[in-house]
Formats: sequence, structure tokens, C-alpha cells
Amino acid sequence: MLEDKNQKPVSELEELGEFGLIKHLTENIKLQNKSSIKGVGDDAAVIQYDNKQTVVTTDLLVEGIHFDLLYTPLKHLGYKAVTVNLSDVYAMNAQPKQITVSLAVSNRISIEALEDLYEGMLLACNIYGVDLVGGDTTSSTSGLIISVTALGEADEKELVYRDGAKENDLICVSGDLGGAFMGLQLLEREKQIYSENPTVQPDFSGFDYVLERQLKPEPRKDVIDMFKEIDVKPTAMIDVSDGLSSDLIHICQQSNVGCTIYEDKIPLDHTTVSVAEEMKLDPTVCALNGGEDYELLFTISLEDYEKIKEQQRVSVIGHITSDKEAYQIVTKGEQINTLTAQGWNAILKND
Amino acid sequence: MLEDKNQKPVSELEELGEFGLIKHLTENIKLQNKSSIKGVGDDAAVIQYDNKQTVVTTDLLVEGIHFDLLYTPLKHLGYKAVTVNLSDVYAMNAQPKQITVSLAVSNRISIEALEDLYEGMLLACNIYGVDLVGGDTTSSTSGLIISVTALGEADEKELVYRDGAKENDLICVSGDLGGAFMGLQLLEREKQIYSENPTVQPDFSGFDYVLERQLKPEPRKDVIDMFKEIDVKPTAMIDVSDGLSSDLIHICQQSNVGCTIYEDKIPLDHTTVSVAEEMKLDPTVCALNGGEDYELLFTISLEDYEKIKEQQRVSVIGHITSDKEAYQIVTKGEQINTLTAQGWNAILKND
Repeated sequence: MLEDKNQKPVSELEELGEFGLIKHLTENIKLQNKSSIKGVGDDAAVIQYDNKQTVVTTDLLVEGIHFDLLYTPLKHLGYKAVTVNLSDVYAMNAQPKQITVSLAVSNRISIEALEDLYEGMLLACNIYGVDLVGGDTTSSTSGLIISVTALGEADEKELVYRDGAKENDLICVSGDLGGAFMGLQLLEREKQIYSENPTVQPDFSGFDYVLERQLKPEPRKDVIDMFKEIDVKPTAMIDVSDGLSSDLIHICQQSNVGCTIYEDKIPLDHTTVSVAEEMKLDPTVCALNGGEDYELLFTISLEDYEKIKEQQRVSVIGHITSDKEAYQIVTKGEQINTLTAQGWNAILKND
Repeated sequence: MLEDKNQKPVSELEELGEFGLIKHLTENIKLQNKSSIKGVGDDAAVIQYDNKQTVVTTDLLVEGIHFDLLYTPLKHLGYKAVTVNLSDVYAMNAQPKQITVSLAVSNRISIEALEDLYEGMLLACNIYGVDLVGGDTTSSTSGLIISVTALGEADEKELVYRDGAKENDLICVSGDLGGAFMGLQLLEREKQIYSENPTVQPDFSGFDYVLERQLKPEPRKDVIDMFKEIDVKPTAMIDVSDGLSSDLIHICQQSNVGCTIYEDKIPLDHTTVSVAEEMKLDPTVCALNGGEDYELLFTISLEDYEKIKEQQRVSVIGHITSDKEAYQIVTKGEQINTLTAQGWNAILKND
């Protein structure tokens, strides 16, 4: 199991105090974007965009709901807290530029743990060219809570919303799906084994891919950059946070259209498939409902098919229909099933 | 005691689901600012500022730390969650334009309670001309958590930071101080009495002012508007959230200056004084360390004194000195004491 240094009870936080803590955690931040005029340390950060539209998105991560500190390294958690927000900005076809971070921490979290958390957040900021410009730090009576807000920019004509999908548009998704969910299942299984017998060491060999998908997801900046390169603007786009099924239905509902996707077109990594089989789960169900893949799900005009078909990082999985009540999946056995939106703790198992 | 409708255990939230809940809570939102291009319902909200600087600020409110649902009506809580953020925007001498709201809710919170919370938030939005443009809703294993991020705008030359205070500048504060802290003490006292004997009805008559200061604080938009009218730009400004002492020290540290304030100049409402006396607390200590008053603390050049001295809503309480280590208060008895920064759970009592 991962080293559990965040569990030791300490009172260091109280000694340092709120202001000392903020200063300690933020003193190494260097602003990298021209639009970041003023960062941490005043009532508000100051940002300047010229002739650009600003996008803003926010996510709240709650211990016990979104992460389990028993198996989540704090550095990974910080990284993920940032990247899931950047993913929302990319899903607008925009470039993230700034984030703010609010934390609520209980005194069983050590300063070292918070440093790891910040290290992960700042690593993500550096990789994706984003400035951490402000936030709030407070105490918590129970677990760790992380709230991240991201700001980004795009030219008005570049922005892609969820409501632009049209009949006959192709439905595409980047990367592969279901991996993050399988990673979570593995971690939960090992947690169970560990709680029954703490001397048993977990064996994760060969499973790195799905663990990384769960613990350290990467937002698809490369896909946004690809759109520019190949001169394609999606008609609608969303990031896959709730699962392919829910997120595709979001696009359809907001665009007033229906959809048909094909089970055999859904991209799955071989690790995802083998872990699913080992756990007696249907990998397609995991891809449809697992969530947290942070891939980009988008629709394009049929006329852009030639431009996209050679792109290794994108799979065409179906098309948009005019029947706005019908969200369909054609199974490998050529049955037509209905997709359903899952949300909030919904985890489907096929037993 | 206030009607306690938020405590009933219900499973309505699970029935409605995350997406249903967001839709239910946000369907009545009407955007009012030209700069709000796209609100709730996509991966991110879209905002357009032309030739303005954008300010962004965020606050996290945690049940058990920042509020107690036993005596906090949800509508007031929603109102306050918004206004404390707007206060940070005004403290930059900027005008708030948009907010995002993230909530983590446990299933003991009813839909009616969340409706009340949103009603309060939207009331604050309407009064201060702000659009709610996005957010995140998730479940919580323990209490209610509210994260609000506010965006605002100002011309570059209008922005006021914390670091501009100069020697001989006058230290000014709007309204009066210590009231919010006394309101909290009253509510805590009644909670104690109620927990010992639930048949005793609380008697808050005559205390409305301090209760309102605690439960429903108003940010000082009027003071920002006043600056425009009388053509004064503060040299430094902060809102009083941690207490006069902490917040004045923030200005001094960031401006590399010292300060001298006078106890007899600190503005106190008569209700604050009488509640403090009844509770055997020193009202000055409450004003210095109580916090949550959300008044504006600012410094102005000596030459602006004539413009500000007739303003009923502002008190001049001292001046900035060149001695950057010295944060002084001259008591009514003409003793010189040192101001100290309190933070995080620090509540001073004079016994």
C-alpha cells in the first residue's frame, strides 16, 4: 500500500495558523501567463483578457466521495484536482489560464501532506501552462475538501458548447474509456484486502495503466491542439466525467437530438478489458457508466470525417439522429439497447 | 428558535439525482449582465470583458466551522455565502458581475432546504446585480459545504490593492465593527440554553442588529459607489473578514508600513456595546478580533481628508506610520498596546 503519511495526527497546522499556512503553500508560485496581473495575496486575483472570451468552471472534491486518502497519494490528488477542471475548459475548446484553489483541512492532515497536495497542483499548472492565482484555506470538522475554479480563454468563434450537435453528425471520443473506473475497482479491492489483513502487500503489477487513469488523469489539451492543426471545429463537446452514457445524453438533450452508438466502436484499452474480465465486469458497461475518464466526447459534421479518420487519438463511435427521445447503443450481438444517464454514486455491475 | 426544516432526514435528493437537482435549482436563473455570455449548463460558463480587468475571488464555507444549521436559516446562509465573496470584489474597488456556486450536500438536507439556500443566493445576486453562471453539486459524507467564486471587473486604474498604504495615510473603516461577533455569541448562548432545555424559547428582542450582522451581512457596494462620487481612490483596501486587527496588519505587511489606531475612534453600534457588556466582553476586543463584519478597511492620502470627513458611513480611526514593525493601538486610557493578528478559530475573551 502507498505510504500513509497523511494519516498521522498532528497539530502543526494550528501552530502555523491560517495566514502562515497560505504563505507557506503559495510562496513558490510564479505567474506564467500575461493575463495573470495579480495572484495570491489580495482580496481577489486580477486577470486581463483582451478581445477574448473568458470561460470559468469549478469542481468540488470531497474526501470519502471523490477520493480515499488511504490509497490516493496527495500529490496525485492535487494533480487530479487541477486537471479535472482544466478538462472542462478544454471541453469548451478553450485554453485554461488561471485557477483558484480552496481547501478545507482537518488537523489530522500534516503540513507535509498539504505540501504534497500543492506540489501536485503546481505540477499540473506547470505542465498545462496555468497560473494558480488565489484561493481560500479553512479548517474542516471532518475530511479534506478541495474546490478548484479554472478560468480560460478563447476567441468567440472558437468556443464549442454542448448544444450544437446536428442530425448525421459523427460522434467521436478521444483515447479510451472505462480505465479510470477499473483503476478505482482495483484500489477498492486492495483496500478491502488490506483492511482484513494489513500484512498482505498489494500486487498491482501490470495494472499501471488503469491505476494512472484513476489517480492521475490527463486532460486532452493535445486534442484541442489537434482541432486547430487539422482545422476542425466540433459541433458539440463535453468531457467524459460521468461516463460515456450520461455525457452523450447531455449533448443530445441540449442539442435536441438523439444518438446511435456501436458497442464494438467504443475504445477500450487491453488492460481495462483484462481487469474487467478478472473482476467479472462487462468492460462496455464500465466504459458507459464508469466515468472519470476525462476524455473528450464530441460531434463533428460528416464533411469533417476525412480530416478526423486518420487521427489515432480519436475514435468515431456513432452518429447523431433526429429522434430526440432515442439514445441507442447497438450491441456486438446487433441488439439495440437504450442508453441511460447515471449520476451520483451510480455504479453499474453486471451480475 | 428558527424553524428547523433543514434537519429532517430525507432521501428526496437521491430520487431527484444530481442532474435533476442542478436543473431544479438553476432553472429560474436569468442572466442580467451583458458580460455573461453563457451560464449554467455547459462545461464552463462564458464571460466577455472588453477593456476591463477581471477580478476573481473564492470562499469555502464549511458546516460546523463557518455556520451552524441549528440557528442559521438556509436562505440567510445562501445570501451570506454570496455577499462575503462580493465583499472581496468590492475590496478591490471593482464591481462583481458573476458567481459560480459549488455545493456538497448530505442526504439529511431536504430539497426545500436547498431551495431556500438558492433563494438566498439568488436574492443576493439580484440585489447586487450579479449573475450565477455555473457550479458543481456533489454529495457529502458529513455536513454541507458551499464554495462560491466571484468574478468582477474594473478599469485598470481603478483597482485598489492591499500594498499601497503610505506613511501619513489615514486609516478609515466603513460602518461599525464587532457586531457580527456579538451576534454569533448570542446565537451560541441560545444554542447552549436550548440544548439544556428545549422548552425555553429564546428572547432576541432588541438584538436584531447584531443578529443581522452575523446572519445576513451586506457588502459595502455603497462605499465603492461613494468613492466614485467624491472622487477618492483609496491607497490600499481590504474587507474586514478576520477582524480589524488581522486585516489592518495585512495591509501594513503588504505595504511595508506600520500603523497607529485609536481605541476611541473605532466605530461601535450601541447594540454591540450593550450585548458585549451583558456578556462581560470588551467591545473593543470584539471589534479588533471578532471578524465577519465585512466592512471596508482602507487608507487614503491625507489630502483626501476633506472629501471623506463629512461621510457618515466612514470613520477615520488612525494613520499609517513608517515603522513597519509597529502595529499600535492607543487605548482610551492613553496606553499604547500592540495589535496582534488572530486567525483560524481564535476568539479572544477578556476575563
